[in-house]
Amino acid sequence: MAYRPLDESTVVSYVKQRPPMAKVFSSLDRLSVSEVGDGNLNLVFIVQNEVNPAESVILKQALPFLRVAGDSWPLTRERMRYETQALLKHNELAPGLAPTVYDFDQEMSLVIMEHLRTHEIMRKGLVARKRYPFFADHISTFLVNVLFFTSDLFLTGPEKKQLQATFVNEHLRKLQEDFVYSNPYMESEENNWNPLIDELVQAVRADGALKIAIAEMKEAYMTHGEALIHADLHTGSIMLNGGDTRVIDPEFAFFGPMAYDIGAVLQNLILNYLSHYGHTADRAEREAYQVYLLELVRDIWNEFARKFDETWANNNRGELVPEKYWDFPGGQEAFAEYRRSYIHRLLQETAGHGGVKFLRRMMGIVSVWDLSSIEDLEKRAVAERLAIQIGKRWVLERKSISSIDDLTGIVLEETKGVSI
Amino acid sequence: MAYRPLDESTVVSYVKQRPPMAKVFSSLDRLSVSEVGDGNLNLVFIVQNEVNPAESVILKQALPFLRVAGDSWPLTRERMRYETQALLKHNELAPGLAPTVYDFDQEMSLVIMEHLRTHEIMRKGLVARKRYPFFADHISTFLVNVLFFTSDLFLTGPEKKQLQATFVNEHLRKLQEDFVYSNPYMESEENNWNPLIDELVQAVRADGALKIAIAEMKEAYMTHGEALIHADLHTGSIMLNGGDTRVIDPEFAFFGPMAYDIGAVLQNLILNYLSHYGHTADRAEREAYQVYLLELVRDIWNEFARKFDETWANNNRGELVPEKYWDFPGGQEAFAEYRRSYIHRLLQETAGHGGVKFLRRMMGIVSVWDLSSIEDLEKRAVAERLAIQIGKRWVLERKSISSIDDLTGIVLEETKGVSI
Repeated sequence: MAYRPLDESTVVSYVKQRPPMAKVFSSLDRLSVSEVGDGNLNLVFIVQNEVNPAESVILKQALPFLRVAGDSWPLTRERMRYETQALLKHNELAPGLAPTVYDFDQEMSLVIMEHLRTHEIMRKGLVARKRYPFFADHISTFLVNVLFFTSDLFLTGPEKKQLQATFVNEHLRKLQEDFVYSNPYMESEENNWNPLIDELVQAVRADGALKIAIAEMKEAYMTHGEALIHADLHTGSIMLNGGDTRVIDPEFAFFGPMAYDIGAVLQNLILNYLSHYGHTADRAEREAYQVYLLELVRDIWNEFARKFDETWANNNRGELVPEKYWDFPGGQEAFAEYRRSYIHRLLQETAGHGGVKFLRRMMGIVSVWDLSSIEDLEKRAVAERLAIQIGKRWVLERKSISSIDDLTGIVLEETKGVSI
Repeated sequence: MAYRPLDESTVVSYVKQRPPMAKVFSSLDRLSVSEVGDGNLNLVFIVQNEVNPAESVILKQALPFLRVAGDSWPLTRERMRYETQALLKHNELAPGLAPTVYDFDQEMSLVIMEHLRTHEIMRKGLVARKRYPFFADHISTFLVNVLFFTSDLFLTGPEKKQLQATFVNEHLRKLQEDFVYSNPYMESEENNWNPLIDELVQAVRADGALKIAIAEMKEAYMTHGEALIHADLHTGSIMLNGGDTRVIDPEFAFFGPMAYDIGAVLQNLILNYLSHYGHTADRAEREAYQVYLLELVRDIWNEFARKFDETWANNNRGELVPEKYWDFPGGQEAFAEYRRSYIHRLLQETAGHGGVKFLRRMMGIVSVWDLSSIEDLEKRAVAERLAIQIGKRWVLERKSISSIDDLTGIVLEETKGVSI
């Protein structure tokens, strides 16, 4: 079927004629539909069985253009293929940690997937000071499984390059290249920032050493094709309920540096930490939650590092270092040391990419809801100034980071004595 | 036309029906053919106009399999497409420094190109102690033009990814991954080495710190997609005559680390330097040529660094750092400093990849003719022991290399007092 955007009047008849739907719905006779997307980038519909309302699916269709900053970006509808491919890979490698895909229609640039009825976007829950005792375990498993099993540590050389060749994704990658690593730090019309931090923003834009460090991280982002990364793994791409975690919206997925995804998760938690200077007036309550968040950051990294190391030691069939390569007296110790140094490099790059992502949220095209929802600009500025300081230090000090405590230590040092 | 391997009886009729040949040959009536390849990997024919012998072409056709180490490698004939694409790119970006391509037949996996009648393989000339006053200029131009103009320093993000997507080349890449970075340093049946250096070879294979460093270089080789690299740029892939330089055989080309190509050139010159302990008995003659070679290595690097910096400063239209990014007081100085640090990183990685390539030639599947042509195993071992020492130090000391003199300095230190 040739591409045409669906609307509420055409979705049901489209869904009815898709064979996989007969397995999802016990009956196709009384389907109802509601549009829930913001219509900017994609159309998003919920299709529900009125006979059994527990049966529902999400239908997501790409629009041919994305409106950003008043301009039309020629985003190909190909991005729905990237999202679907990534979702299928996530389901394969980290089952239960991504929404199930029921159907994909390349011509129509649409995917039909599991409707996460009881889940909430993590960002909202964090602003409401919710705790997620299972999250460190779930997200570290997601990261380890997707990153390790799509890398040269597990795949053969040809397998890796063939998989990588299906994720060129050049247009969405350009969005991140521009909006994370370049435009926020120079004159660009789509940038916006709190006028109260204008002096700090201008200082970042004129800081030669920092600009060089950001360019170094951009170079790594653009060229280091280590593994299939989500490439937009902020807390708005994570949905949770009482015991379940799902990573959604992987349309930016490509083969990039593993640390970019890890950095996105950790940095978003720290941004939320800072947002509570605006959201949570009660100091004891605030501090208790901030302690929880730093503990969560440490747990995520430590769990990631432990599982990554174990998974590698137990599944070393990839191209990078064959088992036999370590077959000499002391070889197993050398292999362990290589894994340690590899993971240590990931931590330093997590600081670098995560640090840049602090800065881009303060002065680029999009803030995060954690901060933008603080209406009092003065209170918001308190959090934003800290975010800039912490981001700068994560980037500039990345090469001397030796443990996760160094990263959380920077947060503690910069927030010490904040009075609000 | 469906694929079929040509032979001396079918080449002429094939050539006659290719339209571009009417422009290369003044007459197609009396073409003669001779097969000149070794038939292992490709068929290579010279086709000549008997009426005007100055008119001749090379026809190179891929065979479906490559025999290595007794095994049949499933090398797709696709590699001729990679070679042709790379040759066309080299001609476009570094005109006059690669053989001209006249015709390409994808179905037949063959390319027809310029016959370099008056050129000689550089490796032969170096063993004969020839000097090439123009070589540093030519090869540095080739490296700068091909590497810079296919990188994110010049191309937009989408342009780069689209070009990169045409060079997946997963099967030939696996050959280099195996035979440069892994197999030589472990038990593998195709390895061979001079029995007189067995102790040193075993020591390399059991050196944990060195093995970790080699794995780090392999990781960079496999994942850092910086630019279109030749990926086999030894002195056997360079043909020269009195004033002309051509880079041939780019079938391994893919998007990899720039330093791999630079390292290949410099390391092959140093290997030749060492080979003269076997080839050149006259000490004064040998030392004079060795002085020349080290000067050549320095000139190549210095010319490369100067041209790369200039080319970048004058053509900064790529995705990595937009002009406007440096638009602040002191911004031009910061840009210059970023270029300096980028090029400095290239030098350190040149040491790393070049160092590994010393080692692989001493204990892997293929030696180099500079050394293998030394019949006296004792004399050959003198050069080989030095190559292992120098290779180890280039790899292990790469992160403290700060100038090309540090690299040549290691050669001087290791060869000081060699008596032969």
